[in-house]
Amino acid sequence: MAINGVTTTPLSIIDTKGGDVLHAMKTSDQGYSGFGEAYFSTIEPKAIKGWKRHTQMILNLVVPIGSVRFILYDDRENQDHINQFQEVILSIADGYARLTVPPMIWVGFQGLGRQTSLVLNIANIEHSPEEIERKELDEIKFNWSKY
Amino acid sequence: MAINGVTTTPLSIIDTKGGDVLHAMKTSDQGYSGFGEAYFSTIEPKAIKGWKRHTQMILNLVVPIGSVRFILYDDRENQDHINQFQEVILSIADGYARLTVPPMIWVGFQGLGRQTSLVLNIANIEHSPEEIERKELDEIKFNWSKY
Repeated sequence: MAINGVTTTPLSIIDTKGGDVLHAMKTSDQGYSGFGEAYFSTIEPKAIKGWKRHTQMILNLVVPIGSVRFILYDDRENQDHINQFQEVILSIADGYARLTVPPMIWVGFQGLGRQTSLVLNIANIEHSPEEIERKELDEIKFNWSKY
Repeated sequence: MAINGVTTTPLSIIDTKGGDVLHAMKTSDQGYSGFGEAYFSTIEPKAIKGWKRHTQMILNLVVPIGSVRFILYDDRENQDHINQFQEVILSIADGYARLTVPPMIWVGFQGLGRQTSLVLNIANIEHSPEEIERKELDEIKFNWSKY
């Protein structure tokens, strides 16, 4: 089941001579919520980064190179749901798409590519340490060993 | 000599466990001129794409993977200068940086990486065919054979 507010949006790839064009984000796209900063994260094969959540930033994640497994964990207090995990794998082979993550969702991610994978985050606000919360990997119980 | 309006801005790379964080563009960066669209172009080794110019779009180009040679050509009529070329190579090894190209500059680019290279363009407006002009590679005389 999808976590409330988390969406994946298919993106186009345009085949051109000498290389492709891969869409990432337009202001007219559904779900666009402003631009604050764009930055890349690289993730080595099998490496896991986590856990981190933003109290204000909306993440828009795109993986143009490699393959990345995102584990989202929702522990927001809400009478409508219980704590839940959601797994999303982004790669061109899995169907090129953008993953939108609202604030207050814990995010961990793992490199599934044979080489370094690349994640672009197009965020609605600029990076600020004041709106980031962190937990050690073992502070949220999740079995990462599938890959 | 640099073409009037073309700038390169050094960008930070933050080393983190399991992979790096690479800055691309923030709204507070010098030279930020609005967000319209972000998209990737891939370029195969030795492939050349060109020539294209935008009559309105400001390009902000970042190369997080591989190495790309950009050839910029300015034929704007201006009593202060003659037609001129400028070469900029973007890669992490060459010093990770953002290349800003104003409208009305012809752009060609060549993949210098051993594998596919990746270019991110963070543009001030959305892509529109109506503000794009194209020329065949041989319509602007440039000797690409150095690489």
